[in-house]
Amino acid sequence: MSGSSFGSIFRITTWGESHGAALGVVIDGCPAGLALDAGDIQTYLDRRKPGQTRIATPRKEADEVELLSGLFEGRTTGTPISMLVRNTSQRSADYSEIANYYRPGHADYAYDAKYGFRDYRGGGRSSGRETVGRVAAGAVAAKLLSEFGITLTAYTRSIGPVSIDMSKFDREAILRTPTCMPDTDASIRAEAYLADCMKNYDSAGGVIECRISGVPAGLGDPVFEKLDANLAKALMSIGAVKAVEVGDGVEVSSRHGSDNNDAFRMEDGQVTKATNHAGGILGGISDGSDILLRAHIKPTPSIFSPQKTVNRQGEEIEIAIKGRHDPVIVPRAVVVVESMAAVTIADALLMGVGAKLDNLKKIYGR
Amino acid sequence: MSGSSFGSIFRITTWGESHGAALGVVIDGCPAGLALDAGDIQTYLDRRKPGQTRIATPRKEADEVELLSGLFEGRTTGTPISMLVRNTSQRSADYSEIANYYRPGHADYAYDAKYGFRDYRGGGRSSGRETVGRVAAGAVAAKLLSEFGITLTAYTRSIGPVSIDMSKFDREAILRTPTCMPDTDASIRAEAYLADCMKNYDSAGGVIECRISGVPAGLGDPVFEKLDANLAKALMSIGAVKAVEVGDGVEVSSRHGSDNNDAFRMEDGQVTKATNHAGGILGGISDGSDILLRAHIKPTPSIFSPQKTVNRQGEEIEIAIKGRHDPVIVPRAVVVVESMAAVTIADALLMGVGAKLDNLKKIYGR
Amino acid sequence: MSGSSFGSIFRITTWGESHGAALGVVIDGCPAGLALDAGDIQTYLDRRKPGQTRIATPRKEADEVELLSGLFEGRTTGTPISMLVRNTSQRSADYSEIANYYRPGHADYAYDAKYGFRDYRGGGRSSGRETVGRVAAGAVAAKLLSEFGITLTAYTRSIGPVSIDMSKFDREAILRTPTCMPDTDASIRAEAYLADCMKNYDSAGGVIECRISGVPAGLGDPVFEKLDANLAKALMSIGAVKAVEVGDGVEVSSRHGSDNNDAFRMEDGQVTKATNHAGGILGGISDGSDILLRAHIKPTPSIFSPQKTVNRQGEEIEIAIKGRHDPVIVPRAVVVVESMAAVTIADALLMGVGAKLDNLKKIYGR
Amino acid sequence: MSGSSFGSIFRITTWGESHGAALGVVIDGCPAGLALDAGDIQTYLDRRKPGQTRIATPRKEADEVELLSGLFEGRTTGTPISMLVRNTSQRSADYSEIANYYRPGHADYAYDAKYGFRDYRGGGRSSGRETVGRVAAGAVAAKLLSEFGITLTAYTRSIGPVSIDMSKFDREAILRTPTCMPDTDASIRAEAYLADCMKNYDSAGGVIECRISGVPAGLGDPVFEKLDANLAKALMSIGAVKAVEVGDGVEVSSRHGSDNNDAFRMEDGQVTKATNHAGGILGGISDGSDILLRAHIKPTPSIFSPQKTVNRQGEEIEIAIKGRHDPVIVPRAVVVVESMAAVTIADALLMGVGAKLDNLKKIYGR
Repeated sequence: MSGSSFGSIFRITTWGESHGAALGVVIDGCPAGLALDAGDIQTYLDRRKPGQTRIATPRKEADEVELLSGLFEGRTTGTPISMLVRNTSQRSADYSEIANYYRPGHADYAYDAKYGFRDYRGGGRSSGRETVGRVAAGAVAAKLLSEFGITLTAYTRSIGPVSIDMSKFDREAILRTPTCMPDTDASIRAEAYLADCMKNYDSAGGVIECRISGVPAGLGDPVFEKLDANLAKALMSIGAVKAVEVGDGVEVSSRHGSDNNDAFRMEDGQVTKATNHAGGILGGISDGSDILLRAHIKPTPSIFSPQKTVNRQGEEIEIAIKGRHDPVIVPRAVVVVESMAAVTIADALLMGVGAKLDNLKKIYGR
Repeated sequence: MSGSSFGSIFRITTWGESHGAALGVVIDGCPAGLALDAGDIQTYLDRRKPGQTRIATPRKEADEVELLSGLFEGRTTGTPISMLVRNTSQRSADYSEIANYYRPGHADYAYDAKYGFRDYRGGGRSSGRETVGRVAAGAVAAKLLSEFGITLTAYTRSIGPVSIDMSKFDREAILRTPTCMPDTDASIRAEAYLADCMKNYDSAGGVIECRISGVPAGLGDPVFEKLDANLAKALMSIGAVKAVEVGDGVEVSSRHGSDNNDAFRMEDGQVTKATNHAGGILGGISDGSDILLRAHIKPTPSIFSPQKTVNRQGEEIEIAIKGRHDPVIVPRAVVVVESMAAVTIADALLMGVGAKLDNLKKIYGR
Repeated sequence: MSGSSFGSIFRITTWGESHGAALGVVIDGCPAGLALDAGDIQTYLDRRKPGQTRIATPRKEADEVELLSGLFEGRTTGTPISMLVRNTSQRSADYSEIANYYRPGHADYAYDAKYGFRDYRGGGRSSGRETVGRVAAGAVAAKLLSEFGITLTAYTRSIGPVSIDMSKFDREAILRTPTCMPDTDASIRAEAYLADCMKNYDSAGGVIECRISGVPAGLGDPVFEKLDANLAKALMSIGAVKAVEVGDGVEVSSRHGSDNNDAFRMEDGQVTKATNHAGGILGGISDGSDILLRAHIKPTPSIFSPQKTVNRQGEEIEIAIKGRHDPVIVPRAVVVVESMAAVTIADALLMGVGAKLDNLKKIYGR
Repeated sequence: MSGSSFGSIFRITTWGESHGAALGVVIDGCPAGLALDAGDIQTYLDRRKPGQTRIATPRKEADEVELLSGLFEGRTTGTPISMLVRNTSQRSADYSEIANYYRPGHADYAYDAKYGFRDYRGGGRSSGRETVGRVAAGAVAAKLLSEFGITLTAYTRSIGPVSIDMSKFDREAILRTPTCMPDTDASIRAEAYLADCMKNYDSAGGVIECRISGVPAGLGDPVFEKLDANLAKALMSIGAVKAVEVGDGVEVSSRHGSDNNDAFRMEDGQVTKATNHAGGILGGISDGSDILLRAHIKPTPSIFSPQKTVNRQGEEIEIAIKGRHDPVIVPRAVVVVESMAAVTIADALLMGVGAKLDNLKKIYGR
């Protein structure tokens, strides 16, 4: 229980259901003095909004953030930052039918088993809409990190069989393509693939990659609060993620040590690495190189083809899901991955401040 | 900081370095009344001992556990269980040379960046020896879970290019083969591969799989304390793990929804699933099917081939690592994966007790 | 940092400032299935409202609660319960003057020292208005506890020199008297005393007592999560509380053991105690007797008499505080004490569920 | 459950029972680079040793600390510091009789109610011997604080009716007098009083005071992690403490605001206070003045006079406790109070490092 908080010092607590009155987040532990306004948050929220393209659900979600506390004269005060987004376009009638059965690939059955009943409207707390709070918090974390030259870039790496070509990486394309791919050509092919999926009443999965630059060496705490361990938790906690990779990830298991070790070298008087198979983390601690993460997203479970399942009475039935559903979750989840990574790094930054007596003396020294 | 604790209610705190006086763990939150003795722990510790085969380091580590608290007349009392293992065979002289440079693929540089200096003897806290405490705790968690019919089976799935054949799965072989593979033929091929690695002064990685059976539906807490999120953290916190998969893992990203959804069906009056692509977890909550996890382990970074690196003075140098090192970490990490999974499930079991008012009434009802 | 959460399983996170847009709380970890509606919360919030009597500030605070999440068809779902109260009557102009100096007895200077600046409007986060979130959470906790026959009764024990006569204890009077005293005569004398205080531009303190009945023996966790330790933290975290007593409290230090020990005896087949000097807690664990707590509240620091202080420029100045201020905080803090006690007991109830293997078997047994 | 940890960043986990093999503590989160050796710890442990005077139990406890991890070349490494003390002088035979009944004033019944059974030897985990781990941790915390000019002084303020005269305060006397009073005359009177108690087969309580000097303004986190809230928890978690006061404590409830407010003034260019009724904490945050705490300790419950109680079979019986017991706990608890205060302040120091963006820039700025 009490599973809706994440982070130790920069700590977020999210709340809200798909069809409740509102969703939101409380950020506790953000340092005082950070310039922040609703626009900073809205930019992030707008990136997860549906209804923008053919490949996303035509639902309209205004998702306007209200900033309720923790700011004074445009800066954070060090006290909790509470933000909420009202639910406005929910049509509960759409969901009345699913109250009584368990949708394959969804959390319906698991929630019933855990809690005895569930808010079935739009999946309740298990809905992707839950990520509104994560993204609002991620916007604040990213703003904080930017003060230290730390930047995050998440994008769609693949949808179904269509992968981007890293040699054509175009950062601008991430915000421009409906797939959030940094490769316009691949994006066009992915859209065609998704159109096929929809025609077949089916859905697709994909891979989201996130690169984090400018992270100082030394973040992450042995042995359980390792930076990669917390990033893995952060990403795996996003609905539909079934695998998380750091650096070269699954590829390392079939490699030789001589191919996988990154030689250290000097560059501009700084220790750096000739390669970055490790993805910027060694022994659970950042090494100063770019951190590289990948999250594998399963295909949207809500498909329009008929499916077998059981109902609450324990009868085997066949269902056909209706309503509005994205054929792929990936593009909307890109900003969620970026947000969770930002929150994790911000927390590690704060956790690391007192790792050395020397650091403390810089603050409290007399 | 304070990163050496894991779990919320069944909470473990590990301590100790490769070449310190001892290593150990404190388990806090284990329920009272569990039958437990040193033998239960020793069985697990013996599985991670080196010096048993050609493919493991010839170091001798007796690793005899001392049970110091939390037991009375053969049962847990509900108070902290403290266990330690003395370090006996460490030869610090072996490591004097590495005090001054950063071994590629190791945490040396990251620790220096974080703490300003490091215990360089055998890697200090970043050594694989740190897992002694995890495994001792895992033994207790597994004993607790066995009271509820929950069993864990971890094994080596692959080493380098050699994978097991699941159709030949032989549970007994896990403890018998030096690779911890449940397939004797594959194990023989893997040993040959490792012999080649050693001849070439090189090392190998691999994949560990863990199956957890008997987990009741309903464990795991939305939205950040999801069962898969905590399992991902648990596994990624093990040194050398670079990717974690749940269920079909990385494969789901290229699938259609119609291929990936698991149809619900009835079996013996119980809701179950026709397939288990999800790996026993839906929406972060156990669904009653087997939980299936995979951890991808990088090749041992300590290789005997010459490597480029830098020293603490910032000079680029070439080194050749000496000493005793496993050509592959995988077999010894199998019990570590099983232990971390056990601790995570035990904690989720305890976290879930109060999810329903009805549960509380069974305990406190009048 | 991140100091706005309380509790381990039944966990509350409050947010909001005196003159911000709103204040609120997120409760995470409340079991599913508890009947709850806005009326349950409003009843508690109404008890802390000002503007009801002569001895409270004439500010009008509607304090209508909005229940935003965690409920479905009138019952808690096990997911976070988010509640907020809009600020409506704040007049920021009143506070412009205090932006530049430090009010004696207030947190102004401490906040500036900590954060570099502060939201000076009405004390910002250090305002008594912060307790809105605590009380909303307390209402939920009390409702949960009532399912197990646990009841809480807080009341004013003394204001300045005026104490209640326990032999005249009248539970109804607590809600009826403007002082929240359970003794109408004492209340009349206390009102006269407060009228004098106001005439002299001065203020008064007092003592709040809280009795908790029906707590099962066995709550509280050795050695740091003792029930009395958490209750002490809960009460001391309320602004203006400077001492906390359990049972006979400060009196025990001058007693003999033979006078202070409570003899155990049998009553209706239950172990009970002949006396209750211990206040229902032994070794940090509830013993089944009533829990008795006392919080000592300092006099309102905002007084109208001239006072010496310094300003942000470091100049010594004399000030005279204006505005609307209660001459005594005690009556409005009664429900806050009750709420914090309720939250603490609810958390201990949930924490204790898994203390025995036998309890777990009642839930997960097969 | 899992109640044996205290602190958020400087986090201690204690373990061990009165008659188990050993007791100890793991400190996680101590910054790297602090000079520390076993002598630092032993000095503190020696202060809680019994057998030193007539008024303490004649048990011999060598209590030699073993430092097992977290140190390298005489300095902390930032990884967990594990310490243990072996139990050597326990005679379990003494306690066989109490296995079957509930001693008044002890935790016997509460433990049975919670856990179903208990380690009855010497009180098990509820024994005062549990504080060995607290004191070892306190020694490290105090050493850390001394780096920042923060010092703690705890002493006996009263035993039974005998109070010290603050005008005769003699710091040296604390370590010299058997009562730990800083007033030799009072100590002699207290010894006489205790001799009387012993003659009457009775026991006494008392008050411990702790002064903390040099704490920078700004420590403590609103609204639940207030410095006084955590200090109250820290002290109330010590067995036998029944009340905690901060600053003028219980006296404030009968005062006028004009008498209780501390005027701010300037001294050597620093904001300070003309008086210190608040005891160094305003709004839960340190204000730079000395922090002043008082813990009220109940009389030793183990008395030799006959007492009424019940046994595990639910029969009312009369008992006479035998064995070796201090007639007063207070002198041995002085170093425990000091230790818990030190741990709390050390944690607050670390928690506060990132409160301001400016602080973070001093560490991570480029």
